[in-house]
Amino acid sequence: MTNNLPNYLIISSAINADINALIASINPDKIAVLVDENTKLHCLSEVNFNWDLIIEISSGEKEKTLDTCKNIWTELTNAGFTRKSLLINLGGGVIGDMGGFAASTFKRGMAFINIPTTLLSQVDASIGGKLGIDFNGLKNHIGLFQEPNAVIVDPKFLKTLPERELKSGFAEIIKHALICDEDHWKHLLSQPFENLEWNKIIPKSISVKNDIVNQDPREQGIRKILNYGHTIGHAIESFFLNTSTPMLHGEAVALGIILENQLAVESGLFDEKSANQITGYIENIYSFPKDLPSYNDIKNHLMQDKKNDSEGVRFSLLNKIGSCTYDVLIDSEILKKVLK
Amino acid sequence: MTNNLPNYLIISSAINADINALIASINPDKIAVLVDENTKLHCLSEVNFNWDLIIEISSGEKEKTLDTCKNIWTELTNAGFTRKSLLINLGGGVIGDMGGFAASTFKRGMAFINIPTTLLSQVDASIGGKLGIDFNGLKNHIGLFQEPNAVIVDPKFLKTLPERELKSGFAEIIKHALICDEDHWKHLLSQPFENLEWNKIIPKSISVKNDIVNQDPREQGIRKILNYGHTIGHAIESFFLNTSTPMLHGEAVALGIILENQLAVESGLFDEKSANQITGYIENIYSFPKDLPSYNDIKNHLMQDKKNDSEGVRFSLLNKIGSCTYDVLIDSEILKKVLK
Repeated sequence: MTNNLPNYLIISSAINADINALIASINPDKIAVLVDENTKLHCLSEVNFNWDLIIEISSGEKEKTLDTCKNIWTELTNAGFTRKSLLINLGGGVIGDMGGFAASTFKRGMAFINIPTTLLSQVDASIGGKLGIDFNGLKNHIGLFQEPNAVIVDPKFLKTLPERELKSGFAEIIKHALICDEDHWKHLLSQPFENLEWNKIIPKSISVKNDIVNQDPREQGIRKILNYGHTIGHAIESFFLNTSTPMLHGEAVALGIILENQLAVESGLFDEKSANQITGYIENIYSFPKDLPSYNDIKNHLMQDKKNDSEGVRFSLLNKIGSCTYDVLIDSEILKKVLK
Repeated sequence: MTNNLPNYLIISSAINADINALIASINPDKIAVLVDENTKLHCLSEVNFNWDLIIEISSGEKEKTLDTCKNIWTELTNAGFTRKSLLINLGGGVIGDMGGFAASTFKRGMAFINIPTTLLSQVDASIGGKLGIDFNGLKNHIGLFQEPNAVIVDPKFLKTLPERELKSGFAEIIKHALICDEDHWKHLLSQPFENLEWNKIIPKSISVKNDIVNQDPREQGIRKILNYGHTIGHAIESFFLNTSTPMLHGEAVALGIILENQLAVESGLFDEKSANQITGYIENIYSFPKDLPSYNDIKNHLMQDKKNDSEGVRFSLLNKIGSCTYDVLIDSEILKKVLK
């Protein structure tokens, strides 16, 4: 099978040639680079192009706020940036989502290029055009759909990642396999995590997401299956966000996959044996907190999920491995049983 | 000549039937109405449909901020609004621009309908899809392009307007005539302001803007002529924004038209006789402050104009009545001479 990648996405093995060719074609009047302290230290030296401004923010989901966005807008303003300028977002999902949102709304839109440096952002945030920030503790509550001018994915950045970050990103790869690609799931099962070859797995995983996004860019229907694991995952992530032990996004999604599979089993949608196989695989890779939030702890977060309507909380659930349904309304009694 | 109106715009003579038909076609799960204290008092009683939430903000350009936007997002969130909900913006340009921005970014986009209630918003903000807020005192600095689901223009709301507001909106009608429609300009000259028939003039003026926007939706070229009068106009408006005598937008634009014509005359682009005719017409309708800001007072505002690039301040200037050029770089010496 050939990998079907979006036309703005480049899987790069010569990142500096690719960036400079893109800059030449966009021909911006000024260039800024958005980094956090980690990508400034580990990734900025890996890229080589001329910029006019470095904007540095602190790393972490808790910085994905309107206040940080205001700082980005202010720095661009003070440095005389125009809507013919370019912002290059060098970092993980927070940098790409928030930098993209800041660029798309600065003077009603300047160009931006995302260079995702984490596995999570390479296989997930890199495509689909979802941009945004968290608001009042609600994930990605304010944002918009806008494709970047370009996304450059270079697996070499993964060498700069702590193992916990790498595993976090891997949860989206598991998700893509489970919802659409049973063969890829079998491939993942067939070898230990440590032996996986990222330069093969990443394009494969991106192409699954790209196929789904192309069918439904504005998430009116089938695209919702990409939210598999995320309804509970986001709620758990939000719950831990302001504690002393925040979970990484992919860790919360991996846990969300396990728990949403239980909802599917309880609802008679999905078989228990497959659910147990997935749970075993995930628990073998990840460590989860001992004390998990109950239904009452995360009920409000679940209610704010963007897939919901006024009838209740809607889930994307597996009906078999490699196939996912969406818009499934789950009764609060089942939720209470699973989220003890 | 037939008036060429955008397909989402309705010139209405039966507003309640039109609104309710639109609501039925959008089929939202919840409806909010955004008003200010003026439109709550004078306009809300003129419309008749079922809403779940009224969001009231204070009137005036100084409220067009991220903080007000945050309040709108918070009210929508607390009332359980989803991305299948609808926001109806009942008011002038501030309500439409900011309400549209809030809706377009809430959960990455909910539906919105604008019902412009001022002459200014009916002939200007009603079309073109420009949404946004002011930021750090800079007009419309943060925003995006997004067409509303519908715009309903009903001239009956103009009866609720103070004369100063009516005249403010009229500046955009003058502008549309001067940049593209010499016949309409002659029509305006042919009778006193008090005798103008809004139900004829409004569709005519909207159709001029619509023709231009359709040629260049993202303001890469010709659309910039709609900024005629606005480069200096915005700067003057910003200058007076935080004083005890703020100018209305259209008043600042009318003054901007006079001053930008002087730039065009000084640059040899435009003839002095036509410029004087326009100045005389405008000064007969409007009263301007005695002490106007100098070049140094508004230089920074001019530099932040969204049409600029790094080379300097670019203007849209008349070369004759009914014809406008754009991207004209004006030397700071000429600016200093005109903005004494």
